[in-house]
Amino acid sequence: MATFTAINLIKRPTGGPLDSSLFEVVKKTIPTVEAGQFLVKQQHMSLDPAMFGWMSADMNSYIPPVALGDVMRSSGIGEVTMSHHPDFEVGDRVTGMMGWQEYFLSDGQGVNKVTAPLPNENILSVFALPGLTAVQGLFNVGKPKKGETLIVTGAAGSVGSIVGQLAKAEGLRVIGVVGNQEKADWIVNELGFDAAINYKSDDLDAQLAKAAPDGIDLFFENTGGPIQHFIFDRINAHGRVVVCGLISAYDADVPDLGPSWLNIIKRRITIQGFTMPDHFHQVPELLEKLTPYVMAGQIKHRSHVLQGLESAIEGLNLFSTGENKGKLIVQL
Amino acid sequence: MATFTAINLIKRPTGGPLDSSLFEVVKKTIPTVEAGQFLVKQQHMSLDPAMFGWMSADMNSYIPPVALGDVMRSSGIGEVTMSHHPDFEVGDRVTGMMGWQEYFLSDGQGVNKVTAPLPNENILSVFALPGLTAVQGLFNVGKPKKGETLIVTGAAGSVGSIVGQLAKAEGLRVIGVVGNQEKADWIVNELGFDAAINYKSDDLDAQLAKAAPDGIDLFFENTGGPIQHFIFDRINAHGRVVVCGLISAYDADVPDLGPSWLNIIKRRITIQGFTMPDHFHQVPELLEKLTPYVMAGQIKHRSHVLQGLESAIEGLNLFSTGENKGKLIVQL
Repeated sequence: MATFTAINLIKRPTGGPLDSSLFEVVKKTIPTVEAGQFLVKQQHMSLDPAMFGWMSADMNSYIPPVALGDVMRSSGIGEVTMSHHPDFEVGDRVTGMMGWQEYFLSDGQGVNKVTAPLPNENILSVFALPGLTAVQGLFNVGKPKKGETLIVTGAAGSVGSIVGQLAKAEGLRVIGVVGNQEKADWIVNELGFDAAINYKSDDLDAQLAKAAPDGIDLFFENTGGPIQHFIFDRINAHGRVVVCGLISAYDADVPDLGPSWLNIIKRRITIQGFTMPDHFHQVPELLEKLTPYVMAGQIKHRSHVLQGLESAIEGLNLFSTGENKGKLIVQL
Repeated sequence: MATFTAINLIKRPTGGPLDSSLFEVVKKTIPTVEAGQFLVKQQHMSLDPAMFGWMSADMNSYIPPVALGDVMRSSGIGEVTMSHHPDFEVGDRVTGMMGWQEYFLSDGQGVNKVTAPLPNENILSVFALPGLTAVQGLFNVGKPKKGETLIVTGAAGSVGSIVGQLAKAEGLRVIGVVGNQEKADWIVNELGFDAAINYKSDDLDAQLAKAAPDGIDLFFENTGGPIQHFIFDRINAHGRVVVCGLISAYDADVPDLGPSWLNIIKRRITIQGFTMPDHFHQVPELLEKLTPYVMAGQIKHRSHVLQGLESAIEGLNLFSTGENKGKLIVQL
């Protein structure tokens, strides 16, 4: 019988860089496709910072953790290779939570057909979790207004780069926080951000003062880290903070404390967290909101493509080191 | 010419207990009442935690600080004793931001007539800043739902005690945080709270677990302090935090840090600060919302009345020590 490769989570991370001992690479038999099911050959899979949450054992998180021994959770894109499902036929391009495996058996739940004539990398980089997250967080949570100043951390990342470009298209002043000069140059010169700040600088407050002379109205947080406090101190009255990610805290034993709540009162700030699983029912309207910006050429992106299923394991560490250049994608 | 006593702010607090050197007690001449003006003899004035903010020099705060040399800002209630204003006549009972002084000259701006046949203490304790703040914060910011669990800090204070009683009337489980046993007994036995926790206890997390077995949906924050972190860790998915006051931070050189933002994402929490000056235009509707609860006997209160204008100075320190019993009011 034909087999395929899958990667199961067998241990939970305990802080620090992830290593291969958390996972086991297994061979599985390609399953029989029953009535109402179809089989997808996954072609590209997405690596996302949210995976750190999915691997952890915190039962209070927004979705249950991946059970030990189960295939690691991930979203991906592929092609239907066999179908006994009325709505999907062989050759359909589909996206969904396919997991770290070469083949994926589905009953159609949570799987969407892709009709846009774009390469897989573009679909995963823009029209999947990154773009949906950027639209939901920026527009529905952050409520940007033309002329305001937005700052986004992880600005060269898959979500941050789209957030910044959407905000520019809406007429905001946009500052991006990144971890190296190459990323700073990319977001300013290629994406059109107004300013970039390297969070590793030692004059963060002075750089913020210069980049945001009128203060900050909207703070889109993807990373955490010490710059969070400097940014928070410069938020204007009625400012909003969208808490989307906290990558610096995911592999910390004890996450850093946040800013004092004193400015929350003084400046009547709203801080709001969100995660996409609460909004999967809004995907059609989020895509509808996103599409015109993409069609108008206002959303550039870049993908960092790793080769082969097993490259996913080391790939996750690129989020912590910041060495990824653009959306992390694994090509199978 | 007749004179009256006023107290001016002449120095800004620098942390620690306030002392009389921040203020100067002066004699002023009762002013001439011009056309469009009226004179109020203040009878009772309110002491509020917000005063710590008004005295500080932070220009980023929600209203400008009291200028050095100006009369200290406060709200009060009194009687019109002379009027050349078409809308106010001698004998009218009025409330407004009258300041620390025995007489107050007004053009009517921000002054409201009192028609309810209730003693001055009741007006200042319920139908003034405390009640308005409780209604705005609980209903318009916190959006309570029947069956949810609310925790309020400063629960025996002027705002907290009303918040808790309104939430009880709406069918929530209500836990109050206080600083001594007498206050704990009062909010449970007299006000009908479901549980009280003394923030000075050394088993705060265990007490919270017992008092809120289903977690916390709504956290109404008046105080800050270490219990903030324990409460925050027990907030449920989609929980809301209303940040109304942070009395423990007002006289701190460096305010305590807040909780990590990690749970804001995991549990999709919203934290929102508010201050009443943004909502003074809503006062009529806030009073309309409050009145039925008061008429139904659902809002009990107690006042702590100090005697004489100069008692205000020492009176402010009662907020920091927690020795006030109910709404602090100065009788002139």
